[in-house]
Amino acid sequence: MKLLAAEPNHVSSPHDKSNADQILAWFKEWGWDAYIETFWVLYPKPISETLELIGPQKFSATLQEPPIPGDSSATATDPALPAYAAYQSDGDVTAGLVYVNYGMLDDYKTLQQLGVNVKGKIVIARYGGGWRGLKPKLAQDHGAIGCIIYSDPAQDGYSIDETYPKGPMRPPHGIQRGSVLDMGLYPGDPLTPGIGATKDAKRLKMSDAPTIMKIPTIPISYADAQVFLAALGGSIAPQSWRGALPITYRVGPGPAVVHLAVKSDWQQQPIYDVIATMKGSTWPDQWVVRGNHHDGWVFGATDPLSGQVALLAEAKAFSGLAKQGWRPKRTIVYTSWDAEEPMLLGSTEWAEQHADELKKKVVLYINSDSNERGFLGVGGSHDFQHLVNQVAADVIDPETGVSIGDRLRAKLRVAALTPAAPERARAAAKIVADPDKDFPVEALGSGSDFSAFLDHLGVPVLDVGFYEEGHSSGVYHSRYDTFEHHTRFVDPGFVYDAMLAKTVGRIVLRVADSDLPLQNASAFANAVSDYLEQVKKLADDEREEADTQAKLLHDHAFKLAADPTKSSGLPTALDRVPHVEFASLDDAVDRLKRSANSYDEALVKNSSHVSVSQVAQVQALMLTIDQTLAPDVGLPGRGWYKNLIYAPGRYTGYEAKTLPGVREAIEDRRWSDANRYAKLTANALNAYSDRLDKATAILKGA
Amino acid sequence: MKLLAAEPNHVSSPHDKSNADQILAWFKEWGWDAYIETFWVLYPKPISETLELIGPQKFSATLQEPPIPGDSSATATDPALPAYAAYQSDGDVTAGLVYVNYGMLDDYKTLQQLGVNVKGKIVIARYGGGWRGLKPKLAQDHGAIGCIIYSDPAQDGYSIDETYPKGPMRPPHGIQRGSVLDMGLYPGDPLTPGIGATKDAKRLKMSDAPTIMKIPTIPISYADAQVFLAALGGSIAPQSWRGALPITYRVGPGPAVVHLAVKSDWQQQPIYDVIATMKGSTWPDQWVVRGNHHDGWVFGATDPLSGQVALLAEAKAFSGLAKQGWRPKRTIVYTSWDAEEPMLLGSTEWAEQHADELKKKVVLYINSDSNERGFLGVGGSHDFQHLVNQVAADVIDPETGVSIGDRLRAKLRVAALTPAAPERARAAAKIVADPDKDFPVEALGSGSDFSAFLDHLGVPVLDVGFYEEGHSSGVYHSRYDTFEHHTRFVDPGFVYDAMLAKTVGRIVLRVADSDLPLQNASAFANAVSDYLEQVKKLADDEREEADTQAKLLHDHAFKLAADPTKSSGLPTALDRVPHVEFASLDDAVDRLKRSANSYDEALVKNSSHVSVSQVAQVQALMLTIDQTLAPDVGLPGRGWYKNLIYAPGRYTGYEAKTLPGVREAIEDRRWSDANRYAKLTANALNAYSDRLDKATAILKGA
Repeated sequence: MKLLAAEPNHVSSPHDKSNADQILAWFKEWGWDAYIETFWVLYPKPISETLELIGPQKFSATLQEPPIPGDSSATATDPALPAYAAYQSDGDVTAGLVYVNYGMLDDYKTLQQLGVNVKGKIVIARYGGGWRGLKPKLAQDHGAIGCIIYSDPAQDGYSIDETYPKGPMRPPHGIQRGSVLDMGLYPGDPLTPGIGATKDAKRLKMSDAPTIMKIPTIPISYADAQVFLAALGGSIAPQSWRGALPITYRVGPGPAVVHLAVKSDWQQQPIYDVIATMKGSTWPDQWVVRGNHHDGWVFGATDPLSGQVALLAEAKAFSGLAKQGWRPKRTIVYTSWDAEEPMLLGSTEWAEQHADELKKKVVLYINSDSNERGFLGVGGSHDFQHLVNQVAADVIDPETGVSIGDRLRAKLRVAALTPAAPERARAAAKIVADPDKDFPVEALGSGSDFSAFLDHLGVPVLDVGFYEEGHSSGVYHSRYDTFEHHTRFVDPGFVYDAMLAKTVGRIVLRVADSDLPLQNASAFANAVSDYLEQVKKLADDEREEADTQAKLLHDHAFKLAADPTKSSGLPTALDRVPHVEFASLDDAVDRLKRSANSYDEALVKNSSHVSVSQVAQVQALMLTIDQTLAPDVGLPGRGWYKNLIYAPGRYTGYEAKTLPGVREAIEDRRWSDANRYAKLTANALNAYSDRLDKATAILKGA
Repeated sequence: MKLLAAEPNHVSSPHDKSNADQILAWFKEWGWDAYIETFWVLYPKPISETLELIGPQKFSATLQEPPIPGDSSATATDPALPAYAAYQSDGDVTAGLVYVNYGMLDDYKTLQQLGVNVKGKIVIARYGGGWRGLKPKLAQDHGAIGCIIYSDPAQDGYSIDETYPKGPMRPPHGIQRGSVLDMGLYPGDPLTPGIGATKDAKRLKMSDAPTIMKIPTIPISYADAQVFLAALGGSIAPQSWRGALPITYRVGPGPAVVHLAVKSDWQQQPIYDVIATMKGSTWPDQWVVRGNHHDGWVFGATDPLSGQVALLAEAKAFSGLAKQGWRPKRTIVYTSWDAEEPMLLGSTEWAEQHADELKKKVVLYINSDSNERGFLGVGGSHDFQHLVNQVAADVIDPETGVSIGDRLRAKLRVAALTPAAPERARAAAKIVADPDKDFPVEALGSGSDFSAFLDHLGVPVLDVGFYEEGHSSGVYHSRYDTFEHHTRFVDPGFVYDAMLAKTVGRIVLRVADSDLPLQNASAFANAVSDYLEQVKKLADDEREEADTQAKLLHDHAFKLAADPTKSSGLPTALDRVPHVEFASLDDAVDRLKRSANSYDEALVKNSSHVSVSQVAQVQALMLTIDQTLAPDVGLPGRGWYKNLIYAPGRYTGYEAKTLPGVREAIEDRRWSDANRYAKLTANALNAYSDRLDKATAILKGA
């Protein structure tokens, strides 16, 4: 880590390339069959940036973080990337300022009710509440001409703990860089959706690329943000909009007037994926793929190098096994992605380029990224939930001496004891209190390199890490995510980075060497059944809310309840919520549960006396079974996303929306989509059940 | 108001006495039979106060608020009371500092889990979370030797709105004075519990007075508090403990070391209640009593003079009616209390002194206190809920043009629409959406001059005011609660102070002139039924929590879920919760509902043809019916509180605990008390039902 994090290693930096070369060299040294696969992507490099308050008083924002003595920020020699939002739009705008809280959809509804319009304005949004890139996107959708994003100390600054270097949290001048590419449409190179960005790939014109923002955007520190926010007048911000700065948060617009100018160099840029293979002895055409990116925003010690060093430790360990004569039955592919930060470019282009082969061969993709001291956290495909539980039972947590699974169970149970614990947390706690039941794997949306595998190819994935005790969020995407910060606060002694290697290493080994498939279908069926209940409750709740709101509007209740001395209008009337045709989906879930139970039972009963040919037949069915959930039709308006069970939310960002075709249609009031995707999702689940039934029949014949 | 708020008018100030004389003069001028009734109470006056940080650096707290130009704080000539907590204990202590959040019971449980003990320490608590006086009381109960209380900007400072004079909220040097007398035992003069503090009353020795605190206590501003809090080390404060100061909130103990010294002059002090009577023409021995205090902490413009000027406006209006020949059928008694601020001394001593007469004669006591622009808020005895609704339907809100009742209904409905609205708010919204159903009156605990009437005498009360739009909390008990602040922010144009007079005036008139009693028994029965459901749910929830916690302790889950690098221990094991004998209370509530329905029905059916003698019989039964709810036994450990339906919470302060004998016994794990008070409360309700049944029989005979 010290070596990899010694200099800034963002895409296009010299150290990013030398890190790829170094990682390649290590793989080769350890006996892997390794190479660098290069893609050519559109990548903007900042040329100049200006952000200033020009009225009522003057102030220029500091767009670089000062070095801190004793930290890599003071010793590195290459320049750090300044405050930057990748794939914002170049521009030079001057306008009145409006504070939009997190800048999410609900915030714009509140603004509407406050009588504040952002049209022609520059907005300032705080980090949190949803994915960064939605802030400029929703701002431009609502007519704003510029977007400032800042890190409020309530989220990751002094409110949480002391600031760096005294403590782990974001210091007053810390800046969170990041991508604002509209990944809700598709991630990866904006010019080559759905195909690999090879040198000669067919490309969109940049002006036609729909994922590039249309307004200039810049992230700033809270030291700077306080000056801009304090200059705002207008309505007092609603209570939930107030952060931890020592000011009265106001919404504006004005009197603050802001000048924002960003200019970038929009070039084609090579990116470097390191791909290393250890060939399988029995089933070389069945692949276990493991990945973690190597590019950061500045030094990237925690993000991504904490996961990268774990990945390298696993690769080195397998090399050690290989030296003792071991060969995996399946092929193991280790990948070190470039350009994850600008929006998953290295993994996405590789997955798109090799889509056909990967869809045939990949048994499981296992991802990691930032890692820290704390609790195991696993997201992914629920048919691998039971495998995760088995591995988690075998790995001992060094802080407590119990398995990492048992520690996670304890956490879930304690969290549900507080009176404010939501109903879902209580339900989860009840389940994990029974040691014979599995702790849950979380549904995945996006936000790391698993996305193209899960969301686009329909390949099952697991995303593994340790979380919560390292406070890594305090330097997230800043110049202070350094070796010093990681080793002082995030994971002193690299204890949990090693734990990550131990955990993922076990998963890789088991998947590589198991004769029979490791899926547990009931876990998947139960998860889907829960999601369907949630979606139905969502429809019912929204129907009730719309009905109640209509009555309140009819009775002028909003007007009567409002303070007439404050500028505020009525809420937008909610559309009536019709009933969705859930019958086919209900039937499909019922069937899935039956089929899953039969399959799991048959697998347990017959695993000891299946023939080689039966194993091969079951393998063939189960290897690609998850792809039945990702039919080619894709999600409405964003067909790159094919998985009908898991997707990132169009208006939440990284956060998962399960059964997204139906759920988001209800949320967005697209009723024909809701009915259509209820059927499409039912069809996908039936196809999954068909496979299970075939596999069950083969196992029963054993 | 300008006259009454021109100079500081706290107890013992010259202006407080001259205000009493002025109010007396007005009553006399308006033709009332008025006099001043004087009591002699123990009242400490500050002599000297010191609060300083003596390590790791030096700092002296400012214990007076600076004057603000254009404000009474800059023009008054008499001195303002400095930062002061009345009935704290004199003392001179030096010790390490511990931050205890709100300083409530739950906070001490959290501290215990954090491994922090306040024994021998000075605590600093923020305002909020419960009544002020519990902060030193719980601090001393846990072994602390001093207590600092400060106003966090999250509660009433810049987080809420701009600070005075730019806006209404608490400026950095604003201080909230207040009483810390242990009113949970009994309010009023600490030396004369249960009897009037007349000149020659039998008194406790001061050293035996249980309601005086045992540790020195002082309130400070947030400008000062920031220095003390920033000097703390130790654990990071839990998230819910963090206020809005721009610091990392830590718990301590130390390294901050604090020196706190308070010295007071503990004297007997005369206090001046103004009592004005307009004799009833038909039933002179049935009294409608109306009160509001006249003493403040400094200028007291909003608290209490906004309510006082409304009371005076009512008195003047009745005088106008009287000049036109009107005489109330019942006697109207208007009272202007002194010494409410140090803890309800004027009203309590008067109620104790005249207890026998009041219990025979008072039909209803109607209280008010601080008032501001906004929504009607009424608390009190639920048998008068329907009367309140009838009056609220007749008074038009000037901001919206609908009745103040309809505006309140709109507010309750809109508040329940947000997804986070608690179940109780949703239930209330459903009720008030039906215009034929009454909006609810809130249960009362303590905190203003109704307490002795409701809690001690068992006389029914209503507490009436307008709230929410005036931001009066920003100057609460500070030197900036001035005429200028009130007229600029709290109630420009005295519009809602006039509304208070209109509303209460109507209530007084109706109660004074109605032949038949105005109670609606079903409203009371339904409220009690709801409270019983809450208490049963409380027992069930606590039982489940204790059982779950026991399992978690058995499985070492708290230890496993904790960060071992942080000092934290296990939570205190909760006692098992046995089942409470609710049967007699269930039966009593069932009967109450039946009896109430019969009575209300009989009253409606027969009201037009009752004889004078029947009216007299029903009046006699109903005049004192609420006293059946306040048998002499009183609440366990605090027998001054006799009402078994309503009481201030022993560990919440002003906030009401309904069915307190049972509810608090469950909360405190006093199981024999829970069973005993379930029976006692059932007996009280049965006595109430007996009265109703007798009244029903008389009405049916009509």
